[in-house]
Amino acid sequence: MITSPSNEKIKLVRALQDKRRTREAEQLFVVEGIRLVEEALRARAPIKLVLHTDDLDPRGQAALSELTRLDIPVETVTPKVMAAASDTETPQGLLALATLPSSSLLLPPSFSFALTLDKLSDPGNLGTILRTADAAGVEAVFIAPDTVDVYNPKVVRAAMGAHFHIPIVEASWESLAERLAGLEVWLAEARAGEAYHQVDWRQPCALIIGSEAEGPSAAARRLARHGVHIPMPGQAESLNAAVAAGILLFEVAKQRSRRSRMPRTASRE
Amino acid sequence: MITSPSNEKIKLVRALQDKRRTREAEQLFVVEGIRLVEEALRARAPIKLVLHTDDLDPRGQAALSELTRLDIPVETVTPKVMAAASDTETPQGLLALATLPSSSLLLPPSFSFALTLDKLSDPGNLGTILRTADAAGVEAVFIAPDTVDVYNPKVVRAAMGAHFHIPIVEASWESLAERLAGLEVWLAEARAGEAYHQVDWRQPCALIIGSEAEGPSAAARRLARHGVHIPMPGQAESLNAAVAAGILLFEVAKQRSRRSRMPRTASRE
Repeated sequence: MITSPSNEKIKLVRALQDKRRTREAEQLFVVEGIRLVEEALRARAPIKLVLHTDDLDPRGQAALSELTRLDIPVETVTPKVMAAASDTETPQGLLALATLPSSSLLLPPSFSFALTLDKLSDPGNLGTILRTADAAGVEAVFIAPDTVDVYNPKVVRAAMGAHFHIPIVEASWESLAERLAGLEVWLAEARAGEAYHQVDWRQPCALIIGSEAEGPSAAARRLARHGVHIPMPGQAESLNAAVAAGILLFEVAKQRSRRSRMPRTASRE
Repeated sequence: MITSPSNEKIKLVRALQDKRRTREAEQLFVVEGIRLVEEALRARAPIKLVLHTDDLDPRGQAALSELTRLDIPVETVTPKVMAAASDTETPQGLLALATLPSSSLLLPPSFSFALTLDKLSDPGNLGTILRTADAAGVEAVFIAPDTVDVYNPKVVRAAMGAHFHIPIVEASWESLAERLAGLEVWLAEARAGEAYHQVDWRQPCALIIGSEAEGPSAAARRLARHGVHIPMPGQAESLNAAVAAGILLFEVAKQRSRRSRMPRTASRE
């Protein structure tokens, strides 16, 4: 049992929680909590080390048994050590270090529904957008330069498993131009471009969402052939970036579900 | 100039930031930051006291001039005192105490687009939902029992002015049953009820959004005649409550904008 927060393994976990540089150097990120570790197991994500307290609930115990069965190194720690290793205020007693996926292997050979995130700085917002993309059936997520690290622990927690379900790839604008070739690229704007519900989203498409504070970057404008916005009949000046992403991505999902599930006749709506 | 954090006014502001009980006893809440104070001014919200540092930017200065012109008591404070009074890490140097609106005066005589929030506990989520409702043109927001206080400073900041644009009324379930009589009441569910885009939202309606963690309360189920859900083609198990609210509220807004702006013919979508 690890009883000291100055244990080398705990220091490594702490550095992985706090520093992008360490995550990149070690090619590891922290997966915290029972539900997320279950998602990692389900996705067969390569796990290098597991820490747990000895008071896990039955669900946590089940995950731990599976990790042990897979010959993954497992260490028991005291609650105090878990608190030192954890990024949350109330740790669930289970934490894993997973290998960063290699982006070249991640991407499917072709995709028709991509999302690009441009300069988002709030980890909670970025994580919520990834969770939403995962729900809407987005096939590939690209992270443009100057965006918060997708393996930041707050992003990983808010994304609730999206990291294990969809390819999330960091890319320069040059590489994005190549990777999105063949898709219609739409830039979400505050008030410019087409109304989102008047766009035909059944075509292969990529949507670019920028930061709330700064708006779309110049590179995003160069890449996108079209602008799209959400008409707002009320008084608010703008929407939260994750809420806007949800409205746009689920318009795409809705239009595509109609294509596959019903003939194209005028519906009730 | 107030130079001590133990000044009685500063202690009052601090208590209003921290305690619902104080907000209710004093019938005041804190409006922090230049943009929110501007919104309060625009809405002619009754302001009792303003604190500011003497390094306001031109926009803050303009708001301050207007407050002075309206004979609102204004106090200069040191940056240290502002930090003590503020709920944010980087205070903008302007903070106002506004009177809690009286709910009986708030509600319009009739409304056809209402939102009820049930047991939401995360202030950031609640505030983001209010901001979204404000953008979507919701006409009345009801706060059901056991929901976080809408005048919590984190809620006020995340709502970005919604408190000054739409009536937000706390109500018991008994009173909600009366107030929503005549509207179709829809309960947002994870996977039950109708698909949201197959509902005719042009009828007068109320939507109930519950907490992510606990799901809808029994009282909400009794009040709602229908359930509604967002079909999710991807792998995520659920959506963030604010994102779900955005998708549902903007479906309503979209259907209603069509009623008023274009004849009902089969459109491109």
